This record gives sequence, C-alpha cells and structure tokens, in this order.
Amino acid sequence: MFSRVTTSHRDPLPDGSQLAAIDLGSNSFHLIIARIEHGEMRPVEALAEKVQLGAGLVNGRLTPEAIERGLNCLSRFAQLLESIEPERIRVVGTNALRQAKNRRDFTEPAQDILRCPVEVVYGAEEARLVYLGVAHSLADDAQSRLVIDIGGGSTEFIIGQRFEPQRLESLQLGCVSYSGQHFPDNRLSAAAFDQAYDHAATEVSHIRKSYDAKHWEECVGSSGTLNAIAGILGSNGWSDGAITRKGLSKLKKHLLQFEDFESVELNGLAEGRRNVIAAGAAITLALFDTLHIEQMRTSKGALREGVVYDLLGRLSHEDVRERTVNALVQRYGADGDNAIIVSKRAEVLFDATRDTWGLSQHDWELLHWAALSHEIGMTISHKHYNRHSAYLLRNSDLPGFSQDEQEELAILAASHRGKLNDVVFSEVSRKAMPRLSRLVTIMRLAAVFKYVEQLEQLPDLTLSAQEDTLSLDLPEGWLAMHPLTSWELGQEKTQLAKLGIKLVYN
Amino acid sequence: MFSRVTTSHRDPLPDGSQLAAIDLGSNSFHLIIARIEHGEMRPVEALAEKVQLGAGLVNGRLTPEAIERGLNCLSRFAQLLESIEPERIRVVGTNALRQAKNRRDFTEPAQDILRCPVEVVYGAEEARLVYLGVAHSLADDAQSRLVIDIGGGSTEFIIGQRFEPQRLESLQLGCVSYSGQHFPDNRLSAAAFDQAYDHAATEVSHIRKSYDAKHWEECVGSSGTLNAIAGILGSNGWSDGAITRKGLSKLKKHLLQFEDFESVELNGLAEGRRNVIAAGAAITLALFDTLHIEQMRTSKGALREGVVYDLLGRLSHEDVRERTVNALVQRYGADGDNAIIVSKRAEVLFDATRDTWGLSQHDWELLHWAALSHEIGMTISHKHYNRHSAYLLRNSDLPGFSQDEQEELAILAASHRGKLNDVVFSEVSRKAMPRLSRLVTIMRLAAVFKYVEQLEQLPDLTLSAQEDTLSLDLPEGWLAMHPLTSWELGQEKTQLAKLGIKLVYN
Repeated sequence: MFSRVTTSHRDPLPDGSQLAAIDLGSNSFHLIIARIEHGEMRPVEALAEKVQLGAGLVNGRLTPEAIERGLNCLSRFAQLLESIEPERIRVVGTNALRQAKNRRDFTEPAQDILRCPVEVVYGAEEARLVYLGVAHSLADDAQSRLVIDIGGGSTEFIIGQRFEPQRLESLQLGCVSYSGQHFPDNRLSAAAFDQAYDHAATEVSHIRKSYDAKHWEECVGSSGTLNAIAGILGSNGWSDGAITRKGLSKLKKHLLQFEDFESVELNGLAEGRRNVIAAGAAITLALFDTLHIEQMRTSKGALREGVVYDLLGRLSHEDVRERTVNALVQRYGADGDNAIIVSKRAEVLFDATRDTWGLSQHDWELLHWAALSHEIGMTISHKHYNRHSAYLLRNSDLPGFSQDEQEELAILAASHRGKLNDVVFSEVSRKAMPRLSRLVTIMRLAAVFKYVEQLEQLPDLTLSAQEDTLSLDLPEGWLAMHPLTSWELGQEKTQLAKLGIKLVYN
Repeated sequence: MFSRVTTSHRDPLPDGSQLAAIDLGSNSFHLIIARIEHGEMRPVEALAEKVQLGAGLVNGRLTPEAIERGLNCLSRFAQLLESIEPERIRVVGTNALRQAKNRRDFTEPAQDILRCPVEVVYGAEEARLVYLGVAHSLADDAQSRLVIDIGGGSTEFIIGQRFEPQRLESLQLGCVSYSGQHFPDNRLSAAAFDQAYDHAATEVSHIRKSYDAKHWEECVGSSGTLNAIAGILGSNGWSDGAITRKGLSKLKKHLLQFEDFESVELNGLAEGRRNVIAAGAAITLALFDTLHIEQMRTSKGALREGVVYDLLGRLSHEDVRERTVNALVQRYGADGDNAIIVSKRAEVLFDATRDTWGLSQHDWELLHWAALSHEIGMTISHKHYNRHSAYLLRNSDLPGFSQDEQEELAILAASHRGKLNDVVFSEVSRKAMPRLSRLVTIMRLAAVFKYVEQLEQLPDLTLSAQEDTLSLDLPEGWLAMHPLTSWELGQEKTQLAKLGIKLVYN
C-alpha cells in the first residue's frame, strides 16, 4: 500500500516506446519525437516553426495574434502526437511565457489541444534542461564544462561534468531584447554596440566569481545565436569552427562598417538573424571578456533534447524532482519523521478519494512532495513556519519542477494548517481551483493526524468522498479520547467550508 | 580605520557604572537599575507599575488612554534615569506592543521621554532574555533546564544550560487572553476549564517533540503567574514549594467549587491575580501533561534581569547580535569575502558622511550587519536574491535583535541594488525615513563598488556629504576606464533621486 511513497523507481520503458518534447521558445516552437531503441533514444521526427511569441509581448502581455499563432502551430504539432501517450509528452515554455502576465490565456487552450500539461519553467530549470541536451550531444568525456545558451530574452549558464549540472544561472539578457533596447530603429553604431556590451558585462559581472574560466575546462555554446556566430566566423575564415575572441573582434569591426541592420552584408548570415546579430555579437564579446573565455565550441544539443532525456528519466530510472525535494529537506534540516508520517496519512486519504475526486498520479506526487517539505520553513522560524515553507518552495531553484508545480507545492505547504485565506490562492486559475481544493483538504487532514497521540497509527477509520463532501467514520468513542484531534477537526470543518468542502465525522 | 568592522570587543565597564532596563510588559512596566561592582551586577533600584497595556488593546490597537497610562509611567521612570547614559539603558516591549498595529504612537513619544531607543522584540528574543534573567538567578549548575514564562498574551519556552539558551519558542497562549476567550463573563465551570486546557494542549503539542521532558533535567517557571501558583500551592499545603501535578489538580478542584472569579476564596491568591488564576492553572496543567513535567520550581529572575545582563554583554565583552549575524551568514553559506568587501566600502562612506548626516554608532552597526548578511538570500536563488535576504532577515529568529532592527536590516538588504520601490519602505515611519534613506544610500554605493575590477581597492576618491547631496570626486579618467561602474553610478543617480538624495560625481 505504501509503494507509492517512493515515486522514483519504475521499470524501464520497452524498446519502441516513443517520447515527445515541445519547446515553446520566445522565437520558435520546436517539436521532437524520439524512439527508444536498445535503451537509447533516437530522434525520429523534428519540427520547428518561427512563432515569435516574444515579439508578441506588449506591456508584459501576449497579444491575441501571438496567442493565435502559437495555438495554430500546436494544432499542427498535435497531429504528430496522436499515437503518443500524454504522460510521455512534455511541453516546456521559457522566457516569453515567463514574462507574459496573461500566460494562462495561452497555456490553458494549449493543454486542451495537446492533451497534456504545458509547463512554464524558471530560468534555472531551463538551464538544467539545456545542459542535459548539450551533454547528450557531446562525447562523454570527463572535462568540466561551461555551457552557455543565449536566447532571445534570457541567457543560461551551466557548469557541469558529464550529465551532471553543478551550477545553474539564468540572466535577463538576450539578443532580441538587447537589439530593441540598445539598437533603436535598427541603427548600427559603435556607441550602440558598446552600450549593449557594457550592459551585458554588468549583468554577467554578478556571476563572474562562480563562472570564471578557472572553474571549468571547456566552454560550449548552444542556441541559434551562438551556432549562427560560429557559422559566420567559419564562412568568413575568421576562425576555424570554434568561436574565438579574435573572430568576434573581426565580426564587430565588419558589422560597424554598416549604418543599419538592413544594409549589413555578411557571408553566412541567415536572413532571420539579420536583426539580432549585432546584439548577439556584443553579448558574446562581453561574455568572453568578463568570464575570460578563450574559445567556445558549439553544440546542436538544446533544450528540447534535454526535455526528452529528462522525461526518459522520469518514466524509467529516476525522477529528478524526487531528488530535488530530498535535497531541499536535507538542506533545511526538516524533521524527516514528521514528513513521512504526513505523507503516509496523505496516502490513505488520497487512496480513499482519488476515484470520486478524479485525482491523478501527478496529484499524488505533488501531495507526497508537499508532505515531505511542509516543515522546511521551520529553519527560518517556528512562527508561521508554513508560510516560510511556502516561500522557500516558491522561490528556490528546484531542478525538475515547473513554475506551476512550485506554486502548487507552495500553496499546499502554506495552507496545510491555520486559517485559510484567499491570498494563498491568488495565483491559482479558476480552472485549477476545484482540484487544488481537494488536494489542500487531503493535506490538511493528513497534518491534523500528525499530532495524534500514537504517531505510528491512524485510527481505524473509514473514509469516503462525494463530490463536495468528505466523510470520516471514526471508531466509537475515539474522538472523546482524543480531545486535541476532536478540537482540530472542529476547526477543519470551518476552514474546509471556505473551500466549498463539507467535512463530516462522527 | 577598520577597527570598527568588529564591533564585538570593547573594554569592560568600570566599577560603579550603572545600567538600566525597562520591561514594557502587557500587564506591568518594570524598571531595574543595577550597578557594576567587581565586574558583577547588583540591583540598586526596582520599580513596577501595573499599566495594563494589554487590557488597552482594542481591535489590535492601543487606546489613547492606555498610551497615556504608559507614557505617564515612563515619565516617572525617567526621573530615575537622568544620571544614566542613554546607551546604558535598554527598553524592551513585548506581546502587547507586538500585537498593537499603532505601536509607534506609543514607542515614538516614549523614546523622547526616555532619550533612548524603545525596542519591540519578537517572542523568540523575549524568550532568550527571560532565560538570561532566570539563569543568572539560579545557582550555576550544569543541568540542562526547561524555563517557562507564562505571560498575559504569550508563553515562552527555553531549553538551555548555564547561560546558554539552546532552543527558544514563543507561543500565543497567555493567562489574560485565555481568561477572556474561555471564561466569558468571568464564569467558572469544568467545561470552560477543559476548553482552556484543550486549547493550550493543542498549541503546545506543536512543540512537544522538542520540549518534552526527555530533553532536559529540571524545569523552572518564571513570571507572575507561575510564581503566584507556586505561592498558592504552598499556602494551602498542596505542595512544598515547587509546582506539582498533584498540587495543580487540587487547585483545579478547589477553583471549580466556585461559579465565578469574584466568589473564589483561596489562600495566597493576590487580588490582582483573581481574574487570571483559572486560565493560568488550566494552561499550566496542559503544559505539565503535554510536556510530561513532573515538577517545576520557580525563579524570580525575569525578562528585566535578562535585559540588564544582555546590555552588560553589549557594552563589554560580547554583543550577541554580532554572533547572530555570523551564525546566519554561516548557516546560509553566503560569500564571506563579498560581505567583508561591502562592509569595508560602507565604512569609508560612513566615515565621510556620519557628521553631516548625523549618523550614530548604532547606524554603523546596522550597516555593518546588513553588509555581512546581504547575500544570504542567494541560498534560495540568485534571482532576486536581495529580496530573499530581506525575507530571511525579517522572518528569522535573530537573537539580540529587536523587531525594528530586523526590519531595518531587511530593508537595507532588499534595497542594496536594483530599482527602489515604495513597498520596501512601507513599514518605515516617516520619522525614521530620512535616516534610513541615508543608510540605504551608503549601502547601495558600497555594493556598486563591490564589482570594481580590483576588488581589493577602492579608487582614491574624495567623498563629501551635504544635507541631501553626496559627492564623489573620482580620479581623472577613472570612470572612463571602469565602464561598468560608470554605468552603475548612472543608474544610482536615478534611484537615489527617489529617496531625495542627489548623487554628484565627475
């Protein structure tokens, strides 16, 4: 019955299984489908469309046109996904969706089209996935490497070795945003170039102590911008394959002969890169100087490949999220016994309610992780520790988790005890609210029974759920002998009523 | 010049020096004056007035009458303090002032009357000070002890050994608040008593794992309530000096013979305790049962004695706040080098501005501690780390610090970089704002120079402050050679203007 507590080990997927990943990038959407052969993955399909979601961000909101472009693209992708089980598809959104305040106007219909969750991930998680993609594209040598991915709006930095990222960072600098900010009206000038360079160098200086050349042996660039620069340097004979400081200087000198983006003539420059190449070159130069990079080779491995490999891990040998939560609990020295008791209590409640309440395996995972981490805030203070746990779950870099997952874990931790108030749920969409109310109910009751006198034993109760009701059938006389639990159940009745859930017990 | 960086060691105070502490309790205000003789402290004066600040809390606000009662009392205390230097007086407010939303309507005039800061402390700090007071009142044996102080609105729990508190907790249960909540209209009944008992037991069950009898060797009660109960048990021959479970049962049985507080007849019951003795007995019984206490002796040592001993430490051998900040930095693994660099930068700026800007030694201490801790939030995430540092500084239990000090440290950490916004300053009183703006200015500039190429050296600059202006006279050509700093100073100009401070540099 308790086998579900450990979510990390499953049987490996059989040969022939298909996995899919979609990268909802700020510039393009990418679909990749891979098949497992002899335990390895082989890409069998790859699609890309230049949706330009980022260009459709106006005052922090996606325009209806941008949303439509994106959804139309996904409808086309969906045709290829029909034969793949939803739990074998992972869809990841990055900077444009992180920035968009109205992201749900896109993600909710997108989920309906794709029949699977659409996750927006934080920069650090994006960095981790990029690293996974790059690491799998390289020969598996043991050198420590710095991987850099310059995107349209954010740039990811990862130091790692083999398949293990060790440091992750995501900074708000990108070739699309810098192009608009420092090269107004597409005008080129030395002053504009230097301004973009200074801005990037300033941003990067915040991380230089940890990412400087002394911390790694080789540097690898991912992403369209860096691959494009490597291509241009090669086409012009300014370097032999890798990006070098000297090659970048030649590129800068060449670009500054022109007065605007439109008039630039440059071997190897793809038309789609014309408007961002100057900003990309300025950023890359600033990175080279600030982090003391001598040369950088490039890799075709990217976010989408990383997503596929991560998904393979989730579905077979290891779910990185389980490891993340365990590391978090350990870092903050939370009481492991209490955590496991609450998880076991939650499991009993989950088993009794899952069918009537339509809860999924993923809902169970969230409950389990929330139970494991619900006391981490005690490291800050016992007072309001539930809020501190929520703060840590919401704001920490949690490898493997999407923004929505972190938010839901935070809500479960914050609302596992005390008075329920609306503020806690302010980030929850109306659509997700009924499901989340049920998870909160399970979490709260599991926590109530945390303090039952015999910590090892739940009373021999019978649970049953209806649409909006949860009934506890307790042994006769049990409540009279457990006045604390009796008192707390009385409190729960009042609190759960706020969620529209009726608690019935004898 | 850098001697100020370490604030913890000073010469011991000479014999004959006087120290004073005021405890602004929810029920009474206490003044104690002590003189140092042969390095030890001897109380030379003690005053108490039953101000009943807590009773003057209506809807979370102090009534004008309660404020007036409190200020009148302090005017009388002030006459005894005239010959004592302000830095040798410490004034500490507890639960009633913690609860009062309009606490500044009391604390600001109180500071004018007493000519020294009036600090409201968090429960954990109150617990620490109680422990210090109790520990000094007991023979210095090496037994580990649980100290409990049942106040009017909060109860403090401390496990410690000799003069070292090891665990601190403050819970929202008190004899005044429970009396009002569970014994309405001063009516006595078994049901009311059991309800108060259950409520207290529930609260205490949250900490029982850490405070249970297996964690300590003896239990000591402090505070008026517990001393009163010990006195009553003794007067009636229900115990011989200590509080015991059996004695408490007899007290309960006796009390329940009466129908209301007014009609209670009980040997040893002081008139002022009549309305709270039933709640006090119910809470004490719940503590005994939940934490498995067999007996409890009582101590006359209390918060005010603890405040005096703590003050003596600050003024001579050791400031516990320095130790607290160092522990915090260590716990969250912050970069010590960066912290010390920012502290050194801040010192240069502080020295150049302190006279014109009227800054005090305490202001320097705050800047120093903020500099040491400004990067602790990076343990949560690099993204918005300044906000995370502020969250930790605001919400952690920081031994030795008052609420206002924690809030000011949080503000300095939050606003040391990035855009300044009003939200950060929402808790600051209008009166404190000019001073805090200047501290923020120093902190921000110190942080700007954190990333100067040669981390070891500031440029050879000349600083000067006028009322609302700070001028940096940099060596010719220096800025042109340091484009990052130049860019950042440009940003600072804009940000500091929001605080009404003009930054001038060449």
